[in-house]
Amino acid sequence: MSYIQQSFSVQFEYKVFFTEHLFDPSNPVFAEFLDSRAEKGIRKKLLFIVDDGVTKHHETLQEQITAYCSSLDNYELVQDIIVVPGGEASKNDLQLFYWLVNAVDQHAIDRHSYVIGIGGGSVLDLVGYVAAVSHRGIKHIRIPTTVLSQNDSGVGVKNGINYHGKKNFLGTFAPPAAVFNDAFYLTTLDERDWRSGMIEAVKVALIKDAAFFEWMETHADELAVGEPKSLQYLIRRCAELHMQHIGGAGDPFESGSSRPLDFGHWSAHKLEQLTDFELRHGEAVSIGIALDSVYAWLMGMLDAESLERIIQLLKTLRLPLYHPLLEIEDDSSPIMAGLEEFREHLGGRLTIALLEGPGKGKEVHSIDPATLRKAVNMLRDKW
Amino acid sequence: MSYIQQSFSVQFEYKVFFTEHLFDPSNPVFAEFLDSRAEKGIRKKLLFIVDDGVTKHHETLQEQITAYCSSLDNYELVQDIIVVPGGEASKNDLQLFYWLVNAVDQHAIDRHSYVIGIGGGSVLDLVGYVAAVSHRGIKHIRIPTTVLSQNDSGVGVKNGINYHGKKNFLGTFAPPAAVFNDAFYLTTLDERDWRSGMIEAVKVALIKDAAFFEWMETHADELAVGEPKSLQYLIRRCAELHMQHIGGAGDPFESGSSRPLDFGHWSAHKLEQLTDFELRHGEAVSIGIALDSVYAWLMGMLDAESLERIIQLLKTLRLPLYHPLLEIEDDSSPIMAGLEEFREHLGGRLTIALLEGPGKGKEVHSIDPATLRKAVNMLRDKW
Ligand SMILES: NC(=O)c1ccc[n+]([C@@H]2O[C@H](COP(=O)([O-])OP(=O)(O)OC[C@H]3O[C@@H](n4cnc5c(N)ncnc54)[C@H](O)[C@@H]3O)[C@@H](O)[C@H]2O)c1
Ligand SMILES: NC(=O)c1ccc[n+]([C@@H]2O[C@H](COP(=O)([O-])OP(=O)(O)OC[C@H]3O[C@@H](n4cnc5c(N)ncnc54)[C@H](O)[C@@H]3O)[C@@H](O)[C@H]2O)c1
Ligand SMILES: [Zn+2]
Ligand SMILES: [Zn+2]
Repeated sequence: MSYIQQSFSVQFEYKVFFTEHLFDPSNPVFAEFLDSRAEKGIRKKLLFIVDDGVTKHHETLQEQITAYCSSLDNYELVQDIIVVPGGEASKNDLQLFYWLVNAVDQHAIDRHSYVIGIGGGSVLDLVGYVAAVSHRGIKHIRIPTTVLSQNDSGVGVKNGINYHGKKNFLGTFAPPAAVFNDAFYLTTLDERDWRSGMIEAVKVALIKDAAFFEWMETHADELAVGEPKSLQYLIRRCAELHMQHIGGAGDPFESGSSRPLDFGHWSAHKLEQLTDFELRHGEAVSIGIALDSVYAWLMGMLDAESLERIIQLLKTLRLPLYHPLLEIEDDSSPIMAGLEEFREHLGGRLTIALLEGPGKGKEVHSIDPATLRKAVNMLRDKW
Repeated sequence: MSYIQQSFSVQFEYKVFFTEHLFDPSNPVFAEFLDSRAEKGIRKKLLFIVDDGVTKHHETLQEQITAYCSSLDNYELVQDIIVVPGGEASKNDLQLFYWLVNAVDQHAIDRHSYVIGIGGGSVLDLVGYVAAVSHRGIKHIRIPTTVLSQNDSGVGVKNGINYHGKKNFLGTFAPPAAVFNDAFYLTTLDERDWRSGMIEAVKVALIKDAAFFEWMETHADELAVGEPKSLQYLIRRCAELHMQHIGGAGDPFESGSSRPLDFGHWSAHKLEQLTDFELRHGEAVSIGIALDSVYAWLMGMLDAESLERIIQLLKTLRLPLYHPLLEIEDDSSPIMAGLEEFREHLGGRLTIALLEGPGKGKEVHSIDPATLRKAVNMLRDKW
């Protein structure tokens, strides 16, 4: 048989910086990063796109950015800093996507310039997607402003928007040029947002790091009230574990079906959608983790003590365990449909991350509906 | 400074097969490829999207595909084979993009299934883009049916659609799962299509392979009438050189500004757009190559004999050298605007591939408008 073989590899690198008050004139972190990327004779543009949930609470942010950027060599701030509605709505609106694509076009943002997203995971997912497909990929910088985006969504390689109500139906894998986690943003979050963001740390600890899970148990009371030092440690360790998985597990762009980081997520995605995103992602994942943990225990995978510890931690962190839409009447119940949609999103074979104990994830390829129903009923009645 | 470093590489592999009558029941090439990708217990779907320029001339194609696929194990043909309008128009129509995205959704094409595009470079660019962004990237197979797509666009890693009249404004880098070059399709092409497709071979030979350029000079009369054996050799060698460049030059996803394969293309993109794509891509590139070659000669880079050989080959192949829209009145003339757009598309720094001789590309970072104008005038008046 006659053919030509193609084979190459592409290297990706980026740093996630931890800082506070990124655009304070005395903070060199952002400027130093840009300096390190400056090229002689090229004036690169910086197009900022900011979550309105951020500007609402950080009213001088635009001026700060303008002042900070005025002292940068080789970079030119695009004067109109774009403000977009925050939250999941930003991912549901194709018009917004095209509005940003038009901005890239009108401001002549080229492949050497930077699109910089500041906001929660939703806005970053939207901005990342815009950057990934404009000019076949322009560089983007992420400045995540929520717990969830600083410890998970903002430090990874995915982006996406929803389409016809389907979560992340359109998107790509596109590593950022850099990520800046600024702890100051966390101080203005709604309680539901910072609280629910912690669930990704619970998730990744359960799958990968028993010691981190124990640390959370020990610090649960501080975490429950959002004590800054503990919250910051949680974010950092969680980000690190996510990044290690992406970089170290050999499948950063998820060509296989294995998705341990999606522990607790299959039902969560469906719950978010069913509640029209009234439920926060993290709240939905908390319920999803509770569900899959009880299911794992019912299936004899997880011991009773571990289950009790997991439920206890979620309760101490005041994270939800149950939602009426979990109820399973029959195979056509919404959660069962969610299972099928998850299979579809993954690829042909269902692969669900479950648990054998804290720090010990394990994959299964089928879910028993009767046992799942039992798990739902327990979550409703027992805790 | 406090940060976490991320670093990983992603490996990409695919084969470009050369065959004839791909869906003939006795041709095992396609079935063998799919067999090699089959996974136990997973039924993968095959969604075909076909250029209507192809179905027009290959009326039994859909039945052939249906018959061929009925004998495949582990694969399920999506019954409705989608036919889309061929040619550049397919890349100008956002509705068509969403129509195909909807088909991926409705037929529940997952990340293990295949979207298979059959058609010219335009349809393949559209289908590749749809596949690249659906579910953050589903696998796609290309079956290029034109000279240009078999020797260049279909064997590489790019896709894209036009947006607001801007060529390839939206797109990604996404290697195919496999490419099947079926020589039989070439027999039904319009003369303008097969003829203009040869220009990419002239281009890549000029940049990289003097021996191949000489081979074309020797076989110019056969090529000029589309003699199949010569045309097939031209396609294969051209595909090979393109693939070697993509895989071997260290920048397959074009993060830098260096684009030797874009020799002759900066003005071509603009000419295509200015003529509302009445000019074929290859015709525009032929004019672009003529322009840049004369320019290189005027700048003292290229010797007179080489220039003469290039012009002679283009003429023997009956490819155009000039278009009235090349005319430069002043800096705001369309071609000068095209130069600026090309810079933008590349990134901050203008990088134009020029020539020092057959097989010897050389990059420059500025274009002298007065000399360019002189080159245009020579093309108009001299040959
Ligand atoms: N790309 C990935 O890998 C990935 C991973 C996990 C989750 N996600 C996505 O992330 C999204 C959720 O992100 P999220 O949890 O960050 O919520 P979010 O982005 O939806 O934001 C929640 C709310 O907080 C507001 N907000 C943001 N920063 C603020 C601040 N500093 N102060 C006050 N208010 C602020 C926003 O305006 C919004 O109203 C979901 O769409 C989810 O699918 C993506
Ligand atoms: N992705 C890349 O790397 C890359 C590289 C170069 C060019 N391109 C793109 O490729 C496109 C041009 O592709 P093209 O030259 O193949 O032309 P095309 O796809 O526009 O097709 C030209 C015409 O030929 C018809 N056709 C296709 N196959 C046929 C067949 N076998 N018999 C009869 N008619 C047939 C089509 O319907 C169309 O009308 C441009 O949009 C260009 O930008 C992409
Ligand atoms: Zn999550
Ligand atoms: Zn070309």
